[in-house]
Amino acid sequence: MEIKLKEDERLDYLLAENLRIIQSPSVFSFSLDAVLLAKFAYVPIRAGKIVDLCAGNGAIPLFLSARTKAHITAVELQERLAEMANRSVEYNGLGMQIEVRQDNVVGIASKIGYEKYDTVTCNPPYFPAIDASEKNIREHVAIARHEIHLTLEQAVQSASELLKQGGKAAFVHRPGRLLDIVTAMRANRLEPKRIRFVYPKEGREANTLLIEGIKDGKPDLKVLPPLFVYGSDGEYTEEVRQLLYGEEQ
Amino acid sequence: MEIKLKEDERLDYLLAENLRIIQSPSVFSFSLDAVLLAKFAYVPIRAGKIVDLCAGNGAIPLFLSARTKAHITAVELQERLAEMANRSVEYNGLGMQIEVRQDNVVGIASKIGYEKYDTVTCNPPYFPAIDASEKNIREHVAIARHEIHLTLEQAVQSASELLKQGGKAAFVHRPGRLLDIVTAMRANRLEPKRIRFVYPKEGREANTLLIEGIKDGKPDLKVLPPLFVYGSDGEYTEEVRQLLYGEEQ
Repeated sequence: MEIKLKEDERLDYLLAENLRIIQSPSVFSFSLDAVLLAKFAYVPIRAGKIVDLCAGNGAIPLFLSARTKAHITAVELQERLAEMANRSVEYNGLGMQIEVRQDNVVGIASKIGYEKYDTVTCNPPYFPAIDASEKNIREHVAIARHEIHLTLEQAVQSASELLKQGGKAAFVHRPGRLLDIVTAMRANRLEPKRIRFVYPKEGREANTLLIEGIKDGKPDLKVLPPLFVYGSDGEYTEEVRQLLYGEEQ
Repeated sequence: MEIKLKEDERLDYLLAENLRIIQSPSVFSFSLDAVLLAKFAYVPIRAGKIVDLCAGNGAIPLFLSARTKAHITAVELQERLAEMANRSVEYNGLGMQIEVRQDNVVGIASKIGYEKYDTVTCNPPYFPAIDASEKNIREHVAIARHEIHLTLEQAVQSASELLKQGGKAAFVHRPGRLLDIVTAMRANRLEPKRIRFVYPKEGREANTLLIEGIKDGKPDLKVLPPLFVYGSDGEYTEEVRQLLYGEEQ
């Protein structure tokens, strides 16, 4: 299939999924956090409806498409990123499974439906809005990374509004926001059930947090085994290699 | 020095500290959690005042005495356990540093002073009161392990009342209570700053949580490297051996 790449875009491989994705160093490239969240989230396997909020260039929906037959709605505010995501979906022949919607995460349930979804995933902007204005960074990156158009609390609220009772919301964020995210989740009927901390390597503090809650679930939190990204040899650990490349452990 | 041991008491070694402690399998023996908390907590080194709440047979005050010259008040509700703790303190010649007080943790600051302490440690009862009545277990163990006379919220409140501004409270608990403990801490002006999860071994869920908060501290939570208790060989890991036996790593 033919594909039109713009400016400094390139067509990268998602090796474990045997898919391809359009990326751009100057506009948006997905991070390891997106990979981790896509593998961490529970998804319905054979049917159902999933929403990915803050979808960026569509990495999480593409990863999820290899794990589920459920329909996936990818919501991305930025037109340029949504358009990249859409071209990747089309290139991979996944137009029937993944719908890319350029829209605001705030209030999205009022447009695509309240309490209709089984799973919501979200890799939200991590950093306060204030930092973005100070740094004069590129606009696309600033909006994706900083809470300019979407706060953590708004992302959690939208996820809850979309979910059926018993539906699951999975987020990735920084450990420093753990208390904020669990507070926001409980305030929005999402009971935290599974947490996994990601450490750059042994002996270091965690730098990433994966958390899943169930709408109207009972309190029963499990802290999963730690995930180390790099081994003492400076290479990806077996677990991360498996996530990225599909290599057998 | 002579020591009188009762019933099935025995005099165990605290190897890393070169101290001894009276234990009794039928009344109370300290757990690994007490060791972990005593090593996790920040303490003033050369001077200051520390309180250990729910002190049991005094393990945490004894461990701490090897790390600090601060005065330590050990508060234990159960007369039998407080008396065991006191005999251990005397046997080790630590009567000048450690004061054992048989008293209720609830309201303890009204007796020993509000906002006068630098550090509070607490290994509280872990399990709901309801389980204890069902199980008909031994009374001393039941009171130490179940929230019969002290809830988690009460323990956190007492810790906060004792602490100066900037003072540190360290708790050990089960990961399933993470949300309850951080909620109680924030409700009592203790801002969580350091969390460490303890895993029985690699690949398993965490079964213990160490958490420290600073009274009126600023939000800035760090998740420390995971601690594994057993290695793949079924033996204590080097880190735990070092904590227990003082062996060099």
